Order: sequence, then C-alpha cells, then structure tokens
Amino acid sequence: MKMKGFAMLGIGKTGWIEKDVPACGPLDAIVKPVAVSPCTSDIHTVWEGAIGERKDMILGHEAVGEIVEVGSLVKDLKVGDKVIVPAITPDWGALESQAGYSMHSGGMLAGWKFSNFKDGVFAEYFHVNEADANLARLPEGVEAADAVMLSDMVPTGFHGVELADVQFGDTVCVIGIGPVGLMSVAGAALRGAGRLFAVGSRPNCIDVAKAYGATDIVNYREGDIVEQIMDKTNGKGVDKVIVAGGDAENTFVQAITMLKPGGRIGNVNYLGSGDYVRIPRAEWGCGMGHKVIAGGLMPGGRLRMEKLASLLETGRLDTSKLLTHRFNGFEHLEEALLLMKDKPKDLIKPVVII
Amino acid sequence: MKMKGFAMLGIGKTGWIEKDVPACGPLDAIVKPVAVSPCTSDIHTVWEGAIGERKDMILGHEAVGEIVEVGSLVKDLKVGDKVIVPAITPDWGALESQAGYSMHSGGMLAGWKFSNFKDGVFAEYFHVNEADANLARLPEGVEAADAVMLSDMVPTGFHGVELADVQFGDTVCVIGIGPVGLMSVAGAALRGAGRLFAVGSRPNCIDVAKAYGATDIVNYREGDIVEQIMDKTNGKGVDKVIVAGGDAENTFVQAITMLKPGGRIGNVNYLGSGDYVRIPRAEWGCGMGHKVIAGGLMPGGRLRMEKLASLLETGRLDTSKLLTHRFNGFEHLEEALLLMKDKPKDLIKPVVII
Amino acid sequence: MKMKGFAMLGIGKTGWIEKDVPACGPLDAIVKPVAVSPCTSDIHTVWEGAIGERKDMILGHEAVGEIVEVGSLVKDLKVGDKVIVPAITPDWGALESQAGYSMHSGGMLAGWKFSNFKDGVFAEYFHVNEADANLARLPEGVEAADAVMLSDMVPTGFHGVELADVQFGDTVCVIGIGPVGLMSVAGAALRGAGRLFAVGSRPNCIDVAKAYGATDIVNYREGDIVEQIMDKTNGKGVDKVIVAGGDAENTFVQAITMLKPGGRIGNVNYLGSGDYVRIPRAEWGCGMGHKVIAGGLMPGGRLRMEKLASLLETGRLDTSKLLTHRFNGFEHLEEALLLMKDKPKDLIKPVVII
Amino acid sequence: MKMKGFAMLGIGKTGWIEKDVPACGPLDAIVKPVAVSPCTSDIHTVWEGAIGERKDMILGHEAVGEIVEVGSLVKDLKVGDKVIVPAITPDWGALESQAGYSMHSGGMLAGWKFSNFKDGVFAEYFHVNEADANLARLPEGVEAADAVMLSDMVPTGFHGVELADVQFGDTVCVIGIGPVGLMSVAGAALRGAGRLFAVGSRPNCIDVAKAYGATDIVNYREGDIVEQIMDKTNGKGVDKVIVAGGDAENTFVQAITMLKPGGRIGNVNYLGSGDYVRIPRAEWGCGMGHKVIAGGLMPGGRLRMEKLASLLETGRLDTSKLLTHRFNGFEHLEEALLLMKDKPKDLIKPVVII
Repeated sequence: MKMKGFAMLGIGKTGWIEKDVPACGPLDAIVKPVAVSPCTSDIHTVWEGAIGERKDMILGHEAVGEIVEVGSLVKDLKVGDKVIVPAITPDWGALESQAGYSMHSGGMLAGWKFSNFKDGVFAEYFHVNEADANLARLPEGVEAADAVMLSDMVPTGFHGVELADVQFGDTVCVIGIGPVGLMSVAGAALRGAGRLFAVGSRPNCIDVAKAYGATDIVNYREGDIVEQIMDKTNGKGVDKVIVAGGDAENTFVQAITMLKPGGRIGNVNYLGSGDYVRIPRAEWGCGMGHKVIAGGLMPGGRLRMEKLASLLETGRLDTSKLLTHRFNGFEHLEEALLLMKDKPKDLIKPVVII
Repeated sequence: MKMKGFAMLGIGKTGWIEKDVPACGPLDAIVKPVAVSPCTSDIHTVWEGAIGERKDMILGHEAVGEIVEVGSLVKDLKVGDKVIVPAITPDWGALESQAGYSMHSGGMLAGWKFSNFKDGVFAEYFHVNEADANLARLPEGVEAADAVMLSDMVPTGFHGVELADVQFGDTVCVIGIGPVGLMSVAGAALRGAGRLFAVGSRPNCIDVAKAYGATDIVNYREGDIVEQIMDKTNGKGVDKVIVAGGDAENTFVQAITMLKPGGRIGNVNYLGSGDYVRIPRAEWGCGMGHKVIAGGLMPGGRLRMEKLASLLETGRLDTSKLLTHRFNGFEHLEEALLLMKDKPKDLIKPVVII
Repeated sequence: MKMKGFAMLGIGKTGWIEKDVPACGPLDAIVKPVAVSPCTSDIHTVWEGAIGERKDMILGHEAVGEIVEVGSLVKDLKVGDKVIVPAITPDWGALESQAGYSMHSGGMLAGWKFSNFKDGVFAEYFHVNEADANLARLPEGVEAADAVMLSDMVPTGFHGVELADVQFGDTVCVIGIGPVGLMSVAGAALRGAGRLFAVGSRPNCIDVAKAYGATDIVNYREGDIVEQIMDKTNGKGVDKVIVAGGDAENTFVQAITMLKPGGRIGNVNYLGSGDYVRIPRAEWGCGMGHKVIAGGLMPGGRLRMEKLASLLETGRLDTSKLLTHRFNGFEHLEEALLLMKDKPKDLIKPVVII
Repeated sequence: MKMKGFAMLGIGKTGWIEKDVPACGPLDAIVKPVAVSPCTSDIHTVWEGAIGERKDMILGHEAVGEIVEVGSLVKDLKVGDKVIVPAITPDWGALESQAGYSMHSGGMLAGWKFSNFKDGVFAEYFHVNEADANLARLPEGVEAADAVMLSDMVPTGFHGVELADVQFGDTVCVIGIGPVGLMSVAGAALRGAGRLFAVGSRPNCIDVAKAYGATDIVNYREGDIVEQIMDKTNGKGVDKVIVAGGDAENTFVQAITMLKPGGRIGNVNYLGSGDYVRIPRAEWGCGMGHKVIAGGLMPGGRLRMEKLASLLETGRLDTSKLLTHRFNGFEHLEEALLLMKDKPKDLIKPVVII
C-alpha cells in the first residue's frame, strides 16, 4: 500500500513523496497522525545538513496519533487507541538502556529515529518500534494539540532542568527562550527555582517566559548577559544554568562565568556547528571549581510520556501558550514547516491538526 | 540583665518566668523576637513529655527577630538586622555536618537546640549559635509573619518532598495535612508532582490542601486510605509517599502498601510513641521491593533559610494561607500556644507579632 | 522433544520429572546448562513454601550454559555461545524497567522468573527471555564454575553494598556471612570501606570473610552484636549496614541501633516470615534520624553480568573461595541441592559441572 | 616569637626567611611539622606563577604535625596530639560549605589556604583554622610519612574517582600517573573498577600503576591514546575517565572521544594555562551525549582525613609505594622541593621527616 509524506529530498530540498506504508514487526505499531508539529531540528536537518545527507526521508518527530495496526507481541495497545508519540523511541533492551541511557540505545543519540534513521511522522502512516514501551495513551480531557508538545518540547526543556538539578530556592538562568527554553523556564519554576533569569529578546517569547515563571528577563541586546546577571545578583552569580540556545563558541563561556562554584549546567541545545565547545579555564576554577557540565538528549519512551502527560491532566503545565499558529489539514504541513524556517516575529510553535 | 519568657516549668506545666538575658559568645548573636509561632512539638514537649523532663525551659523555636548583639567574630550581621531564625541551628564544624547531616551535629537530632537543649524563642531575647552561619536576613517585601513559617513548617514540609525525591509527573501521596503536611503538599506541587493525594479530614485543611495543589483528597473517615488510593489509581499505587502525620504502628504499613516497587517514603512526622515502627513484610517485597524508607529532621542554617525565603520573595509560595490566627503583643504567646493544644476546628497555625 | 529436570513436585517434595523442551520465541534463547549451583532460596521455595505452592516446577536459577537455539530477532548471540545466565531476567520494555527497576518488570519481584514463574535451570534445557538483553558471553579465561557465582551470589551481595552506598573509608557492618553475605563483605572491601565488621559464627565462613576483607568478626554467640560493635567503635557505631542474614523481627532493630545518623541500611536478605519488619522508633531518631532503610532484589540482565564478569577477568574478585563442594555430572544435582538443605559445617556453596 | 620557614620570595625565587610564629585564634591551633612533602603545585606556584605574585609566603601544604597550642574554644584536640593536616582547611560555616562544597568556602578554591592565602607548612610552626573541624588524629600504627600522603595526594586522586562516579565493573581510564594519578588508579581499583587503563610513560610510575591495580598501560609515546584505547576495547570506549594530567587544549578532547555516552569525566588536574578548555563538539554528542564533565578541588577537613586514614589503618591502601625519596631533617626541605622541580627519572614523591 502506498502513502504520501512530506520529505527531505536532499540537503536544502523538501517536497511531497509517495512511499510504501511501513511494515509492522511483532513488537511494533503503525500509527496515523492526529496532530503534528514541525521542530527547529527539522529545519537544521534539511537546510543546514545537521545530520548529514538524507534522500527522500520523511520529516517530523512530534506527533499524537491513532493506532492502525499492532504487531503480534504487542499487549497493551490496540487499533484505534489515541497515543502520544515521543521523539525518542528507544530499543529498551540495549546495553545503553540497561545503563539508564535509553536515548543512546544502539549508539550515541541513536534513540532518536524519526526523521533521522527512519521516516518521520509527516506521513499518512508511520512506524513505531517497541510500541508497548514507547507509546502512551492520550489521557481523556487532554487536547491532541497540547499533547504534541510532549513529544519533544516538554521532555527536552524539562530535561535541562533535570540535568541542571534544580533544587528548592535555587537561582537559575535559562539561556534561550525558544519553545524548548520556554519549557525549561516552566520546568525550573515547576521544580521550585527561586529567582529565575530568562535570556532572550523576542517580545512574545518574553511575555510567555514571564507567564511560565521567569522573574527577570535578560536581553542580550541590552549588554553582556553575564554582566547583567552578576549585577542583578550582587556579584554572586547563579546556582544553575540551563542552556537552551546559543552556540558552541560563546554560550558555555557565559554559562560557566555566571555560575557559582558547586553549580551545574544542563545543556539541551543541539550544537550544530563549530569544532569545539569552549570552557573558560580560569572561570572553571582551573578545572577545580565543581562546576559540572552536563548535556543530553531527552529521555523518551512510554513512562516519560505518561508522567509528563499527568502534568497536563492536572493543570500544572499549560503547553497551549506555545502554540501560536494552528492549522487544520494534512496539506498544511509544508506551510507549518516553512514557518519554523522563516520564524515570523509572532511565532513560537505551530501545530497541524489532521 | 533579666528578661521574661514563657516556659515549660515541668511536664504538663507552663508559665511566665524570669531569667538572665543569655550571654553572647564570639560567634553568636542575641536576638529579640519580632514574630513567633508556637508549634505542635511545643505541645508534645510540654504535655506529652516527648523529649523528657525539662525544668524552666523557655519554649518556642519559630521566629523572625532583630539582632541586638553580635559576637566579636561575627562578620556578616550587625545590630538592627532583621533575621529569619531556623528551628535547627547546627554546629557547622561537627563531623555530622561535614558528612552532610548538620541537623545531627553533635549527635542524632542535636542540631535542634531551641526549646530542646537550650532556651527557646518565646522570650524577650534569645541566643543563636554561629550567627553568620545560622541566620538569614529577612528580605525586603516579605512579611515577618509569613517568614516565621520558614523556621520550621516550610523546611520540614519541603524536606519530606526531598526525602521522597519527587520527580516530574510522579503520583504522590501526602499523609497528614496539618501545617507541615500542607507544606509537603505545596512542596510536592512545586517540585512537579502530577497527581497528588492528600490524606486528611478537617475541612479547612482540605480547602488549603487543594489551594496548594492537591488533586485528590482522601478522607480516612470514608474508608481505608490504601483501598481508596488503590481504587483511584487502578490498583497501581503511588510513586512516592510523604508522611507528615499518623503513628508508628499503622502509618508505614499504609505507606508501604500503597507504594509501587522502586518508590520512596519521606517521613517528616516526629514519631512520639510506640516501641517499633512497623513495616509490612510482604508488601515491602520481603525486603527486596526497592521501597526506600527515609526520614529526617529538617536542614536548618542560613543557606536553607535564604533559599526558601526566595520562594516567598518570588511569589512561588504563599505561606499566609497557613496563618489562621494572628495576635499582636508578646503577652498573647500563652494564648497562641494553648490554641495549638486545643486545636479549634478552624486552626491551622497561629502567629504572634511582637 | 522431551527433557529431564529436577523439580519441586509440591511443597516439601522434590524429584526428577520429564517435560517438553521449552519453545523459543522470537527474542528468546534455549540454553543447556554447563555449570549450575543450587541456592538457599531453592530450599526456601521447596521446604518452606516461601513463594507459595508450585507443582512440577523445575528448580534452579544459577547457571552458566551453552546456547542451543535462538529466536528470529536475536542478533548478538548464536548457537554454541557460552553464556552467563543471571537469576533475574527482566522484560526490558516494562514501565518498571524504564523507571530503573528492571528487577520488578511486570510487578514487584517479577524480574525473577526461573524457578518462580517458570521452569528453572536444573534441566537439560531451559528458556531465556530477551536473550540479547539478558545473557552475557562467558569471557575467555574465566572458569564456568567461578562464573556461576555471577548469576546470583555476586550481584546480590554487591547490591547490598550499592544500596548501603558504601563510600571510601566508611565503617561498615555486614550482618550474615553465608555466600551472599560473603559477597557483601568482598563488595564492601572492593568499594573502599575502611573498618569492616562481619557478623557470623561458622568457622569456615569467618575465614573466608577475613580473606575477602573483613577487619573484625562479630560472633553473636559471644554476646549482643550491637554492644560488641558499639564497644569496638567507642560508642560511635557504623556508617553503613548491609543485611544479608537474620530475620524481620530483630535484625533491623540491631542494624538501626548500630547505625550513625545519616547512615544507610542495604538489605539483600529475603525475609521469608513474620508479618512485620520492626524498626526501633527511638533509635531511628523518632523518624527524624536520616537512617535510610533500603532493600532490593539484585539487578539482572546482560550489562550487569558483563560488568561483574570483568571483575573476575581482571582478578579483582575471586569467587572460587565460595565453592566448597564441586560435583561433576547432571545426576549430582539432587545431592548438591540437599547439601544446601542440610548445611554441613564445611559448606559455603556447591557447584555442579555438567 | 620568631620562626624559620622556607618561602616563595617572589615568582621564580625561594629561600629561608624568618617570621613571627602565627597567633592562635579561639577556634584555631598552632602545629609544628613532623613530616612534610612538597607538591607539584608548590613548583607551579613559585616557578610558573600559577596563583599570581606572592612575596615571602611560606610554602607547603602537605603535613603531619604535632599540636603546640590550641584556642580557647577548641574541645577535641590538645597540645601534644599528633595530627594529619589536610591541604584544604575550610571555613565550615560558610554558605558554600552548607551547600556541600566546603573546598570553596568563602569563594571558588578558597578552602585552599596554606601556601595560597596564608603561610604554609614548611615552617617551624604553622596555623590551622577551625582546628577541631580540620585536624584528624594520626591513628596508632600509621607512619607519619605514609600519612602525609593523606594531606593531598590521596584525597585529590580519590576525588577524581568520586567525580567520575566509578561503579562495580566499570571500564576506567586514568590520564596521568604522577602521584595524584597513581592515587586515582588505586582509588578506581579500590572502588571496584574492572578494566583499568593508565596513561603514562615513566617506567617507575608504570610499575607502581600496575601495583595499584592498572590492568593496561597506555603509553602516549607509542601512538594516539584514544586510538590505543578504542582498539583495546573493540571500539566501545570506556565508561569513565579520570583526568590527572595533561592540559586544557587536548586532554578533554581525548577524554570525551574515548568516553561512551552516559559516561563521566572526573578532573583533578589543576589546569594552569590556556584560555579555554576544549570540548570536541561532535564527540560530545553535539551537546546531547550525556557525557558529564566534572572537576573539583579535593574535599578537606577532619572527617575526610579520618575516613582516608582508616584505609591506611586497615591496610586497604599502601601509600608508601609513592615515597621514592626520604629525607631526615627540616634542613632538607629545599632539597626535597627542588627534586619536585627537577623531576629525576626515579622520583614519584619525596617526604621529609622532621
């Protein structure tokens, strides 16, 4: 059977293609999308070649869908179930998963499969490995559009908070307030941060950052961000930094400099270019300052989706603030994707309801 | 110089006494109270003899005060400073403090000094050891009455959340919704719990528990709490339990039974009677279920106070919901304390402004 | 095809039976044993009915074997491979596994399948679920007999050390020096414990405990063990306790009493009887002493086996000291099992080479 | 009263000077050295100006001594006590200490006082702040010369193991096998590492590395160390890396490249030059590989000294293998220090008994 999908045809080129509907292995499921959202990494993938050459690969890794087929060994799910699909769908038996790093199952970053190693979710149908372990039922009362943010934005942004190990009353700085950074702001507030600096400049993102709990906005257009933060903290700096934007060359220099000894950096920004990440030697205490640098791909899988979905169910988190652009109909996928490329002023995140 | 204080005269007896104003060692401070609050443990101390016989010991361990004298080695504080006084004032150089357990400096629970090993804060003046390390300045814009809740209620309630290690989206049960339990509810919500059960029966506490983020109230008058929670979770139970009420005989039986394997109990309830805490063998997985049982006295000291105060400053936490009864004047101390003993229906916590 | 196995016929009864050779699912393997060892829990299972009634269930969960068949989805293993078989063989996709508790995959303790929910390894052939994820290749140069101790004795004993979180220079007490307790002694020494008390009385176990690194033997026949340990530590007690023997009624009373505030108990003793585990209230700091009580089934699976096998390969651990009785031939299985039941004075652990 | 000391006169210059015997505050002690050892950081301080200009500052921070005076508030120690002196002597009440980072009390690295902010131990007498909290009694039966290694070499080397969080059976690489690196090797073995690579080239250090538990020596003179390690691990790399040598420019590039996703680097090498530490972007998983980079100054204080001393008492660790050169008499201090500067082939560490 054939299906349509919106694909990367090669670096810099996209278009609609036709492919066979994927086959379903004994542990797997075939899903049709109900709501999807394009991601900045789709843009990096296509127009910056961030993951290298790909030919006719269907894009997209953020979706809520409906199951249309399950494999013979699938027990918990059945055809017709509405499910949240995480961007990361690990092989749970892999050695890396056994070690607690399922996002690296089968190799570094290899838990990320959609629109990386296999076709993504911008298709009439898509394939999910280890369905029982990787798909969570969409809870009643949660909107599909809101739940699409659980595929990547929420778990990635919140993982920055986990990597930085935010504790009650910590002074925290989030660098970058795109949709992931905004979820880091929301996650840091929801984790009990005290003073919460958000570094960014776009007005609509600033408004949403405040709504999610930022106490101070630091605009890099108004001066060096480290100086601004040292000023605002009487020279003490911050307990934790979450990096959700910036680059390899400068951002960690800033983050280390503003960090107290004993602090932690949690990076969830995909560093797409540059040979080296630079760590400032003296500010890092000549290697002795106990400023931990951690960074990692979001944990995926069913349990993660269920836990984060409970934050929507209970009203602790409102992802709808991210959804600035809504489309209805599969045919709007290209338009939505191009929005992420062109980044109009009022954009945070588009969603397409199918 | 003499001063007045409200004291435990012996088990079951209280009254006003006169004592010498305490002397100030080189690291210490003498403080006069600005706002104080009586605690249920004052009641246990006097009327249940929970910590044994004491004679003419001034009561009270929750206070905001003003410094009237500092020792010769004190550097950061000066006379006139308004300070938050933690119930626990460790000896920071003790081996237990070096091991990370400052609340046990000098012996188990020995970081608790006020109204335990030395005179408390219900006096015209009181003594604070290691002042620079144990007192935090009251931030501007924070009410003294609200800040008194930082002495014990907030750090104790929140420590239950820390001991239970609540993570994003965890299903959590808080057993007991007196003022400490309510702070555990607030802390669990502020730490990112998903579904949040609060076990209690008093109507005003139930209202405040909901305001602090409880999603489900479990009333033990309406049936076995374990059954109710297993019903509401489709037999799965909860990820974490915070014990802020109950007794040695039954509460841990309930907590272990409702807990999933891999779960944790965080106890912050002072267990005043019974020879043994009972853990149900089979439900504990015959010792193999990875249901961790942790319990501990609140961490005190200056840093803890500063971090928790930042939650009031930033509006993340509103302690005023606990303050059902307000008094003005030192002379109302006895009245306020007796409220805690008599527990009228509408009481959560009284505060006395001096 | 039929095969022979040594089975529990019912509570209190054992015997040789004939069964079908197990079928191999797509992720599974069929293995024939090369070396096996009976375990005290086989004894509890049969003669104490510890896990309830079982009829014609083949016993045994400690084995090194050779693969005779693999399922269609198995990638890393092939027929003829010699493998170490862990006692615990999780379902790696289960929610409990995703949460880090694979030993409880599918329910509390349900990662333990051999001779519990399905036939064990005392058979001509046995079945292993998720073979790639649960079997580790036997490294060259490691004896099968020594490696059988990796199925259960080493990971269980070492998990006690992990649960107790032994740190450099900690004073540690291991209660019980049967084969699991001896591995806790070896593990605590290998983890950097300083003074290391081993509680036991059997002369050959005492000798082996010393060889594995115990610095002090505490014999319960010579007086109360808590008193002995408090005497030897000048009243300070120990930092960590590993429970590898004793009972629900008294052992935790002793462990909590000898523990410093801030200490941890790691239990790896299967508590087979008694309604309640007793925790002494006052010695537990009235619930406030930060004496953490943890207990859990060993982690199984391939990665764990590979990591522990590396300790044999590198000579850091010598399990052969446990192997007091060696048999050659499948037909000696019954004899070896009965040794574990009768516990002759010189027994630590028997092994049967097939 | 006057005393003699061996001092840094200025960058590049050393000599004997005369100074007043230091005064003893109420919490302090005055100590005369019994055994001392020069450290590579003394060399960096004098000849590389690593910590900036210092004038007439007495050198040395590794000592065992005898107490000659105690302050009025000192309780546990008395004149005549033989004590181990840690290189790091924190202010225990500082906010950083309360946060668990006592080595940074008062500012990043500011727990390091001897031969940094105040006179060191190469004098007839030296001053120790917070004596009860910072000095540990020398246990009976432990040689002063062996115990001097507890001041810095053991806690620093072992801290690398702690920062890297070595677990049972981990494959570990220690980069650098000077005295600190050798203690990292010993510490990793004592913590349960499996395969243990030691990177170095000097023959006597290689011999001692093997004696301390290294299983494989990787000589950078024989080719790229990353290639050698990838070869020896079949392309898998290592679980943990401890950095105890190398530089800011290249060493972390190597460490990150050889590390598995989910791995950790523990740095205990003082990085004295270079503007930036370089982290290789792609090998770091574009910031998403969960390769944690941690580095920190050793924890000091009394408890740490007591715990590590117990490893000498119990024979778990033999520091005497480090002591290649022994001198008797205070007058040999200069000679011993110059050995560290000139690094003859057979040197690991000199000690001077006084």
